[in-house]
Amino acid sequence: MKIDGQAWRTIWLEPGGRSIGVIDQIQLPHQFTTRTLRSCDEAAEAIRTMVVRGAPLIGVTGAYGLMLALQVDPSDASLAAAFDQLNATRPTAVNLRWALERVRDRVAPLPPAERAEAAQVEAGAIADEDVAMCEAIGEHGLALFQELAAARPGQTLNVLTHCNAGWLATVDWGTALAPIYKAHRAGLDIHVWVDETRPRNQGASLTAYELGREGVPHTVIVDNAGGHLMQHGQVDAVIVGTDRTTRRGDVCNKIGTYLKALAARDNNIPFYVALPASTIDWSIDDGVAEIPIEARSPEEVTHIQGRSPEGAITTVQLSPDGSPGFNPAFDVTPARLVTALITERGVVAASAAGLQELYGDV
Amino acid sequence: MKIDGQAWRTIWLEPGGRSIGVIDQIQLPHQFTTRTLRSCDEAAEAIRTMVVRGAPLIGVTGAYGLMLALQVDPSDASLAAAFDQLNATRPTAVNLRWALERVRDRVAPLPPAERAEAAQVEAGAIADEDVAMCEAIGEHGLALFQELAAARPGQTLNVLTHCNAGWLATVDWGTALAPIYKAHRAGLDIHVWVDETRPRNQGASLTAYELGREGVPHTVIVDNAGGHLMQHGQVDAVIVGTDRTTRRGDVCNKIGTYLKALAARDNNIPFYVALPASTIDWSIDDGVAEIPIEARSPEEVTHIQGRSPEGAITTVQLSPDGSPGFNPAFDVTPARLVTALITERGVVAASAAGLQELYGDV
Repeated sequence: MKIDGQAWRTIWLEPGGRSIGVIDQIQLPHQFTTRTLRSCDEAAEAIRTMVVRGAPLIGVTGAYGLMLALQVDPSDASLAAAFDQLNATRPTAVNLRWALERVRDRVAPLPPAERAEAAQVEAGAIADEDVAMCEAIGEHGLALFQELAAARPGQTLNVLTHCNAGWLATVDWGTALAPIYKAHRAGLDIHVWVDETRPRNQGASLTAYELGREGVPHTVIVDNAGGHLMQHGQVDAVIVGTDRTTRRGDVCNKIGTYLKALAARDNNIPFYVALPASTIDWSIDDGVAEIPIEARSPEEVTHIQGRSPEGAITTVQLSPDGSPGFNPAFDVTPARLVTALITERGVVAASAAGLQELYGDV
Repeated sequence: MKIDGQAWRTIWLEPGGRSIGVIDQIQLPHQFTTRTLRSCDEAAEAIRTMVVRGAPLIGVTGAYGLMLALQVDPSDASLAAAFDQLNATRPTAVNLRWALERVRDRVAPLPPAERAEAAQVEAGAIADEDVAMCEAIGEHGLALFQELAAARPGQTLNVLTHCNAGWLATVDWGTALAPIYKAHRAGLDIHVWVDETRPRNQGASLTAYELGREGVPHTVIVDNAGGHLMQHGQVDAVIVGTDRTTRRGDVCNKIGTYLKALAARDNNIPFYVALPASTIDWSIDDGVAEIPIEARSPEEVTHIQGRSPEGAITTVQLSPDGSPGFNPAFDVTPARLVTALITERGVVAASAAGLQELYGDV
């Protein structure tokens, strides 16, 4: 997607093939900068510190991280160590493990000398497939939005989203935002309510930034406001991404998603979840009971980063000294609250039967 | 309640009786300072800018604001103008109008020369009655908490609260926090989950500050986290205040309250609302349809105030230039989601019949 008229992806192989370029998402929305990752350590650190974030993008970064490790040492031991190091960076999203396993399974049978190049090809394929999957999600979601808009002729379609499941969370297009970009390009009168998404404010920083650069009308709200807007008819649909989806359609997404799903249900508003198949964890049924929820640093709650009046990116303390914080990063929305899943293969009920219908071959 | 071992109220008549002292809540939790209000204009400005906030405290400040106006000019015209000026400062809470009407109705029949002194007596009475009502709410709520604790012997009672309905929102004790202070002093093993309450973070700043000064165990969380904690059995009860309560028990409180009520219902957790009778608007049934919701400055969404690493109170920008914000300050929780109302007269169902039972004489 575009920034200042120029098309970007979030991650790319740099010339020479021995380093990876990424957009530094910690500096957004205040500064657009890129960063070079030259080793598996740097890739792991970029995931851990959220220089890159978003389940699909984490997966691709992990895949390239294996490549960077194998370029230095293509042994079995190196492969296993890099796999473990990268896999431990973030515990909740399932794409990371999926992408790491895909690269490992591709390269492990090969002679060590061929592994780095094979990893590069495989990581590149994961990235390209991600773009294609996101675009397909966009097309399927567009059809849903067109139906909703057709039921309200002459009115703006108001869509609420939580966190950032846009192109910055993937390689391009995004998951939840792909249908929004498609709708905007198709000329639909669409407006997005952007939940700021405390504690890290991926909505106010990344989603608002993305939408602004593409010219999509949007308004930033605090996470508390969505229920009120729904009560007053100002939200026509909710669409979010997911970091892990269970076999029966429970979705684990950024903390607070569950609250919006409850409000959507209470106000008869459709609640859609957009996902590539790589977020589905076929080994799990009950998301609330079975998905490990990452607890991140309490400092993300007690402090916040913003731009000072002088233009510097600054962190300020919000709560009093001596008051501890607790920071679970994700929650689980049970399938019963999800109107439909929008995948690269189509739109389907959030249920074991629904997912089986589309992915019986997997 | 106490700050550094010294007992405070949030508002007091200063020696000489021609000015009012208040705690400056804009500087909390980073600096404890007081401010003197010397005129009706200064009282109105203190309410509007949230130097004082919380429905009961706004009411008392408004009452003293009328006194300050009448000290300068006790005419009918001055009384009417001061009433209108103060009443226009915040549109949602009903205590403000209630307190202004009470003072006006008390002084209007008097000769102008007697009005200022009568207003002082009446404002003082409103303040003292508020303290007594809050303490009574605390006692009724304590009994509820003792029941909940008895059902979980040996376990910490985890209570979640949203915004600040503590003593800083009233004259002393608080509404929602009064039962918590009573429980803590009674030796109950109680812990409070404090919603930070964006956009103005009254939870992270004021509630955490209050609880910390009184030594009540508490943890600050983002507004998004409560649903997840409830899903995992980490919340035993929710208790909040209200800025306006309808005849049938709908409650209008800080934006985001409705979302917590939905999550409490979805997880079979009791959801209590603590209120003095002065927040009841007997003229309204349907809170969602009938209560005007104040839209405050979008800058409260796009920016936030905190303490810089150098110790200065600083405002930083969170969202990108060009992304607008929208800032509704309250939402309405329908009575169907409220387990019980805790008033100064006792605990009652959130329904017209329940309120009639306690307030049939009003």
